[in-house]
Amino acid sequence: MGAATILSGLLTEILIPAAAVVGIAFALVQWLLVSKVKLSPEDSASSKDGVSDYLIEEEEGLNDHNVVVKCAEIQSAISEGATSFLFTEYQYVGIFMVAFAVLIFLFLGSVEGFSTKSQPCTYSKDKYCKPALANAGFSTISFLLGATTSLVSGFLGMKIATYANARTTLEARKGVGKAFIIAFRSGAVMGFLLAANGLLVLYIAINLFKLYYGDDWEGLFESITGYGLGGSSMALFGRVGGGIYTKAADVGADLVGKVERNIPEDDPRNPAVIADNVGDNVGDIAGMGSDLFGSYAESSCAALVVASISSFGVDHDFTAMCYPLLISSMGIIVCLITTLFATDFFEIKAVKEIEPALKWQLIISTALMTVGIAIISWIALPSTFTIFSFGDQKQVKNWELFFCVAIGLWAGLVIGFVTEYYTSNAYSPVQDVADSCRTGAATNVIFGLALGYKSVIIPIFAIAISIFVSFSLAAMYGIAVAALGMLSTIATGLAIDAYGPISDNAGGIAEMAGMSHRIRERTDALDAAGNTTAAIGKGFAIGSAALVSLALFGAFVSRAAISTVDVLTPKVFIGLIVGAMLPYWFSAMTMKSVGSAALKMVEEVRRQFNTIPGLMDGSTRPDYATCVKISTDASIKEMIPPGALVMLTPLIVGTFFGVETLSGVLAGSLVSGVQIAISASNTGGAWDNAKKYIEAGASDHARSLGPKGSDPHKAAVIGDTIGDPLKDTSGPSLNILIKLMAVESLVFAPFFATHGGLLFKIF
Amino acid sequence: MGAATILSGLLTEILIPAAAVVGIAFALVQWLLVSKVKLSPEDSASSKDGVSDYLIEEEEGLNDHNVVVKCAEIQSAISEGATSFLFTEYQYVGIFMVAFAVLIFLFLGSVEGFSTKSQPCTYSKDKYCKPALANAGFSTISFLLGATTSLVSGFLGMKIATYANARTTLEARKGVGKAFIIAFRSGAVMGFLLAANGLLVLYIAINLFKLYYGDDWEGLFESITGYGLGGSSMALFGRVGGGIYTKAADVGADLVGKVERNIPEDDPRNPAVIADNVGDNVGDIAGMGSDLFGSYAESSCAALVVASISSFGVDHDFTAMCYPLLISSMGIIVCLITTLFATDFFEIKAVKEIEPALKWQLIISTALMTVGIAIISWIALPSTFTIFSFGDQKQVKNWELFFCVAIGLWAGLVIGFVTEYYTSNAYSPVQDVADSCRTGAATNVIFGLALGYKSVIIPIFAIAISIFVSFSLAAMYGIAVAALGMLSTIATGLAIDAYGPISDNAGGIAEMAGMSHRIRERTDALDAAGNTTAAIGKGFAIGSAALVSLALFGAFVSRAAISTVDVLTPKVFIGLIVGAMLPYWFSAMTMKSVGSAALKMVEEVRRQFNTIPGLMDGSTRPDYATCVKISTDASIKEMIPPGALVMLTPLIVGTFFGVETLSGVLAGSLVSGVQIAISASNTGGAWDNAKKYIEAGASDHARSLGPKGSDPHKAAVIGDTIGDPLKDTSGPSLNILIKLMAVESLVFAPFFATHGGLLFKIF
Repeated sequence: MGAATILSGLLTEILIPAAAVVGIAFALVQWLLVSKVKLSPEDSASSKDGVSDYLIEEEEGLNDHNVVVKCAEIQSAISEGATSFLFTEYQYVGIFMVAFAVLIFLFLGSVEGFSTKSQPCTYSKDKYCKPALANAGFSTISFLLGATTSLVSGFLGMKIATYANARTTLEARKGVGKAFIIAFRSGAVMGFLLAANGLLVLYIAINLFKLYYGDDWEGLFESITGYGLGGSSMALFGRVGGGIYTKAADVGADLVGKVERNIPEDDPRNPAVIADNVGDNVGDIAGMGSDLFGSYAESSCAALVVASISSFGVDHDFTAMCYPLLISSMGIIVCLITTLFATDFFEIKAVKEIEPALKWQLIISTALMTVGIAIISWIALPSTFTIFSFGDQKQVKNWELFFCVAIGLWAGLVIGFVTEYYTSNAYSPVQDVADSCRTGAATNVIFGLALGYKSVIIPIFAIAISIFVSFSLAAMYGIAVAALGMLSTIATGLAIDAYGPISDNAGGIAEMAGMSHRIRERTDALDAAGNTTAAIGKGFAIGSAALVSLALFGAFVSRAAISTVDVLTPKVFIGLIVGAMLPYWFSAMTMKSVGSAALKMVEEVRRQFNTIPGLMDGSTRPDYATCVKISTDASIKEMIPPGALVMLTPLIVGTFFGVETLSGVLAGSLVSGVQIAISASNTGGAWDNAKKYIEAGASDHARSLGPKGSDPHKAAVIGDTIGDPLKDTSGPSLNILIKLMAVESLVFAPFFATHGGLLFKIF
Repeated sequence: MGAATILSGLLTEILIPAAAVVGIAFALVQWLLVSKVKLSPEDSASSKDGVSDYLIEEEEGLNDHNVVVKCAEIQSAISEGATSFLFTEYQYVGIFMVAFAVLIFLFLGSVEGFSTKSQPCTYSKDKYCKPALANAGFSTISFLLGATTSLVSGFLGMKIATYANARTTLEARKGVGKAFIIAFRSGAVMGFLLAANGLLVLYIAINLFKLYYGDDWEGLFESITGYGLGGSSMALFGRVGGGIYTKAADVGADLVGKVERNIPEDDPRNPAVIADNVGDNVGDIAGMGSDLFGSYAESSCAALVVASISSFGVDHDFTAMCYPLLISSMGIIVCLITTLFATDFFEIKAVKEIEPALKWQLIISTALMTVGIAIISWIALPSTFTIFSFGDQKQVKNWELFFCVAIGLWAGLVIGFVTEYYTSNAYSPVQDVADSCRTGAATNVIFGLALGYKSVIIPIFAIAISIFVSFSLAAMYGIAVAALGMLSTIATGLAIDAYGPISDNAGGIAEMAGMSHRIRERTDALDAAGNTTAAIGKGFAIGSAALVSLALFGAFVSRAAISTVDVLTPKVFIGLIVGAMLPYWFSAMTMKSVGSAALKMVEEVRRQFNTIPGLMDGSTRPDYATCVKISTDASIKEMIPPGALVMLTPLIVGTFFGVETLSGVLAGSLVSGVQIAISASNTGGAWDNAKKYIEAGASDHARSLGPKGSDPHKAAVIGDTIGDPLKDTSGPSLNILIKLMAVESLVFAPFFATHGGLLFKIF
């Protein structure tokens, strides 16, 4: 009864919520510090300490009221646009959630014909478990909880981001270091809120469910998987809808603004410029947040459900069962310490210190977390225990589980660094791509695609090794905790990731507010570092998605009572090959969606340029709101086909073809999707930075390709535009495809196992 | 003893070689008919019947000696270039073949420690089979036989193609119908020679081996698998080397000629123009031929090896065992009849009749072949028999086997038509891509990539259904004969496929010889139809490669004595995910190879334009030979890394990680590779035809995008250039990757099963 662990059950009950509360408090403190930068001109100009703080570097004529007012105006326009998008999205989310909740209840309730009688447990046949109807009800509740948590976290992240962007711009007047701190603190708000909220809600749900389930851990944790499904469903809206939004606005703004009208990026005359900046917030902040939250919730649920049918559950060892939550709790504390290294222990003084500072965040958090994992594994696990492994019980030692978590964590770091190598213009791969622009856009595209393909090699080996080690040591539980390991530093990961779009917005605001070239240079430097960290963040997201969906796949297979998934059976093999096709189908849809939505935007922008007099000379303001509305409507409409593909595939395959074919589909889409996701996101990142490399002209080689407007630069711009939907829409959306299909299969597994495979039953 | 089949063993022994001989004779007749078009000016101008035949349409001033002499000159330059490339390639092939033959002998000989004693058979444990050393020797011999047959067939195909190209040009003066017949007949020479030679050599080898093996069918047909490996190894050189050659020359010629110097395609002033035309022959003719030959040889071998351990082998039913060869024999006869429909029964009178004529070839051959399969299945199979299925014997009826072959055949047709839909500019997908050129190259690329992704959906479903049906009916034997079914009309498939590059060359020769615009228009019409058939041919090649490699995979698994390939084991899963990554690695290499080789070509072409006086005004001839040499050397050098990846992966994985991981790798690379191959080849084909759509300006929509040189056209040209390596190098090369790894694993299976998995044995 938990006596085998050093940490007592009571202490576990205290430590987990304590860590979550500390995380939330830390996030609020960061928010408070960001709010100290005043956006109202009265304060900033008249208050004494405001003045004394200003003009550390003398920026003539910039400290006036007008600039601050303008920044505040632009910020509120962006914030309103983002809020309006999210609220429109939430209306559809609401309908979807209710409909899907009903579906979950009906499908799972029907497993035992809506009987309210207790029934023998699936794994401990000699015991009685709660009725399927109760599981249906609690699964539905946890589904709604997961969705709501994701929604709230994403919304708060977006709020702080749109709260911080103009403040970052204003701080950039004082120096690059000050601006960095503001952007980074805001990112930290997002990261900590998400990690801590996710943990806290999950923890509370478990404790409430326990009141009903008692020690029927199997039923409890099977119901809890709904939490992962809820988180992931929201991620579908966030990633796919947000991804289409951001790139429709971006591509649409560029195609008319940069190409046809020859005005710079973020020019306030461009009607789509606010929509573009809104897109950064809804796509890269809310979308990425919901994606990683989904991974986090799913890997926790996958681990918990396996734990419940392992010796932890059988022995009612609550502390050991909570091992995944304790890892996450430790992660919050570790990330908190790590954040202080960036904000308090060291100070950024020059542009070139930004990228290393962000990279050190990754290294420090990984190193500290390794120690953290060791401690948790030591105090929260019995020295030996058994883990459920496809029908058998496999004996595992606590240090073996430490290795599982740690290898996931370090694989994440490896993926991060490889991603950086292939997407940062400090290294030869991107420089080679830039060089290929000499012979035109065609060679740029060929080299960029080849780079993306090549960039999958090491991450796949890293994932494969993690899988092999954790799988061999602790079966599917090992995979689940390896995924958790990769996600354990999620607060830091999200902080440096959210930092990017905030800096990007800050640059846009500087441009729109007509601030000086020097300010723009500083925000550009922040943004360039943000591009690389965004690519690293995507690498993490994909890597963890791969591990998570394998863990979910394993949990699904266990729950559906399949003992082997044999490629040498026709049912499985056709699933495998069709599953490997789905990421292509899905990508075709999302890319086409961006194209169509962007064309609608192009028409509107053209219309405004043609019909609003005085727009080009800056005497009239364009109608930003219409562009925001177009992006909003188009993205919601365009996400329906890919969303339907993801949501319906498991239901159709499971119901008509059965669990074996569905297993094949899950495995196929996983192994194929992860490759496209990595290559698409790195190809896009490389093209973006190849363009920036030519624009920055920091070396002789770069200058020989430039300047802006030269033929190689034009070729680079074409590559950048192609890369936009690849890296921000179709690539990252694939995470959702592979995870959501897996978690949906897991939740519906009892139904498929009982009623599935209709087609084969008929013939 | 074969009494159960209607067809007697003796008749089988006669019919198979008879069909092969008929096929060869038919090919020679076609060659004779092509040779009737005289290329020597004396004949064509002075001989009476030559004159009477000429000038059916009055082409003034074109019937003179000069044009004919010029055509003959250009032809001989192309022919020399192609021959020189092939002979250079053969030197490397020779070294590789000898080395690999030694490797095969050593690996397989070592299975029983080079013992010359007989040993219990793998499947019939109560009988004694020939020693492993004998199998090693005969495998080596059949490997060399397969390689040589592929080499000879490819060489002859290239010879007839370079023999026919100028003749097609000259015939184009008489009308499009005459030119079509010449190009098509030449394609038929290639198709029939390859199909008939492949069958004949295989048949002779079986009969010779039988002298030693007697009724040890297991040993005999295991040794025969070397034939497939030999064919496929040559295909590596043909497809990858040839693919790099052709696109290095093409892209290199275009980048300097079209982009920098603004001279048209195939302009004789371009130093790379001969290399470009040589490339069509070595890449699209010899490469495609060796690829399909490999598939053909492999699927035959896979079927035979399964047959030998099924009731056919156990009962010594020679006719039933020869079922795969009888299907191929019937295929030759069916294709012969089909060809007459194009050359004799109907006559092409107008440009718009070309494409339907080629399409009808596919439909007629498929329809006739369905009847042919039914006949063979009826007379050559017992009404009921058992097929070896992973350790079990599965009972199968003859009509079930008919369905297996027929579904493969019809799946091929479906893939062909879907490919046509997505790559022909007669349909909306390509027109949409063309339309997206309005907003520039970036949208063209986005829409083109999305089109390619989308185009995999139906082919994958077609393949999945074929696999499911044939797998369910007759296990791996079903898959193997389904692949054979798809390839049974290979002679017709290759004829319409080889027709394309011949017409392309004919157009090039017309341009270089300075013939009139009307001639060029006719050859362009032939070429446009050829583009679509080339895409269809690639679709066939990929589809059959998928089925073949699955069949080989099944044979490998049987031979390695694995009973399940369970995705839920770490060894298999890491194989699966790494296998799914290999096509990306491989594509990155081949694309980079084309890029590097093209850049070398660009430098040489630029050098010649800059240093040879009078080149641009046409008074001096460029140095074609150097460009041919550069393409030759670069392609041989650049094919080493991708070639090594393909050849070494199975050896390394099998030796160090063992047969389970290797199974995962094979399954992963198959399900992932087939998607990239289809999408790459269709994306490339669509871009090519979108450009042609704008250039042809056949509709109001097309004209609104043109003319040549307009901004949309420029964007389309960029897409076309990007598509070149995708559709002609990296895409088709993936066929080789998935097939060759599978057949190599099959041949080395006994070694891996005995000595493999070193790494796991150590730890």
